Amino acid sequence: MREQFHDELQALTDTLLDMTALTATAVRNASNALIDADLALAESVISADEQLDSKQLELEQRAVNLLARQQPVATDLRVLVTSFKIAMELERMGKLARHLAKLARMRYPNRVVPDEVTPTIIDMAHVADLLITKVRTVLQTRDPDLAAQLDVDDDEMDRLHRHLFEVILAPVWSHGVEAAVDVTLCGRFYERFADHAVTVGRRVIYLATGERLPADVG
Amino acid sequence: MREQFHDELQALTDTLLDMTALTATAVRNASNALIDADLALAESVISADEQLDSKQLELEQRAVNLLARQQPVATDLRVLVTSFKIAMELERMGKLARHLAKLARMRYPNRVVPDEVTPTIIDMAHVADLLITKVRTVLQTRDPDLAAQLDVDDDEMDRLHRHLFEVILAPVWSHGVEAAVDVTLCGRFYERFADHAVTVGRRVIYLATGERLPADVG
Repeated sequence: MREQFHDELQALTDTLLDMTALTATAVRNASNALIDADLALAESVISADEQLDSKQLELEQRAVNLLARQQPVATDLRVLVTSFKIAMELERMGKLARHLAKLARMRYPNRVVPDEVTPTIIDMAHVADLLITKVRTVLQTRDPDLAAQLDVDDDEMDRLHRHLFEVILAPVWSHGVEAAVDVTLCGRFYERFADHAVTVGRRVIYLATGERLPADVG
Repeated sequence: MREQFHDELQALTDTLLDMTALTATAVRNASNALIDADLALAESVISADEQLDSKQLELEQRAVNLLARQQPVATDLRVLVTSFKIAMELERMGKLARHLAKLARMRYPNRVVPDEVTPTIIDMAHVADLLITKVRTVLQTRDPDLAAQLDVDDDEMDRLHRHLFEVILAPVWSHGVEAAVDVTLCGRFYERFADHAVTVGRRVIYLATGERLPADVG
C-alpha cells in the first residue's frame, strides 16, 4: 500500500516534470518567434498550450484521486498539496509564453521589438530559459539551495526589466507609442514568468525544509 | 463527525468570503488612489495586502488540516480542493490591486493617467468593483447562472481594455511614451483582475454542476 502510494506520488512528480518540459519548450519557442518574427513558431506555441492545460488537469485528477483513496497525512499530504500548487504556477508560466507568442503573431510580419531593444529581450529570454531549466532540476532534486538560487536569477530579470523601461523612456526613443507598449508587455510577461519560477522555488523549499518563506512575490 | 466537518467546511467558505471582502476593498481603494492621486490611500492598499496573504495561509492550513483529519471524498473533497484554488485566485486579484496602488504611489503627486483616459479607467474600476461584488455573491450562493454572468462582465472589461489602446495609439495622443506605458500597465492589471474573477466563476460552476469549463482564461 505504502509502496504503491510512493509510486503514485512519483507519477505525480513525473507529470510536473512533463509540464516543466512543455513550459521550457513554450518559452524558448515564444522567445525565438518574438525575436525572429517567426509566425509558424508563434502558432506552434499558441496551439501547444493545450497540452500544458491537459497535463495540469491530469495532475489535479491524480492528486484528488490519491487524496481520496490513500488519505495521506503529514509529509505525504504536504507533497501532494504542493505539487498541486506548483502545477498552477507552471500553467501560468505557459500562459505567459503564449502571451509572448500572441504578440509575435499580432505584429507579424514585423518584429515586435525594435533593434535597440532586441539585445535586452534576448537576455531576458536567456534568463527565462535558465530559470525553467533550473526549476526542472529543483523539482527533481528538491535541493533547497538550488531553489534559493532562482531568487538570484530573478534579480537579473528585474534588472533587465528596469533597463527596458530606461530604453523606451529615453528621449532618444524614436519608435513611438505602439512599440513602447509592446516592449512594456513583453517585459512584463518575462518578469512575471520569472516571478512564478521563484514561487516554484519557494514551494520546493517549503517541501524540503517545512519552512514557509515570506509572502509570494508578485 | 459529519456535522463537524460541515461546520469546518463552512469556516473555510467564511475565510474565502473574508478574502473577497479584502480584495474588494483593495481594488476599490487602489482605483480611487489611482484616479485621485491619493498617496495615503495607495499606501493603505499596499500594506493591507499582508492581511490577504495571511487569510490565504489560514485557509490553506485549515484545508490541509481538514484533509488530514477528516479524509473527505467525492463532493466534500471537491469543495475543499476548489476552495483552495479560489483562494489562490483571490490572492492574485489582491496583488493586482496592489500593483495599481504601486503605480499611483510611483507617480505621486502626479496622476498616473491623463485626463482623456480617466473616464475609461473609472469605467474599468467600476467593472472591477462589480466583478468582485458578484464573486462574493457567487461564493455565497454557488449559483452557476450568476457565476456565468462574470464572463459577460469580463467582455465589458475587454472592450474597455481595447478602447484604452485605441486612445493611447491614436495620432492625437500627446502625453508621450511614459504615460502610454503607465496606461498599458493599468489596463493590463484591470484586465487580469477580471480574468481571475471569471476563473473563480468557472470554479464555482464546477462545484455546482461538476462540469469543467474549457481551459482557464488568460
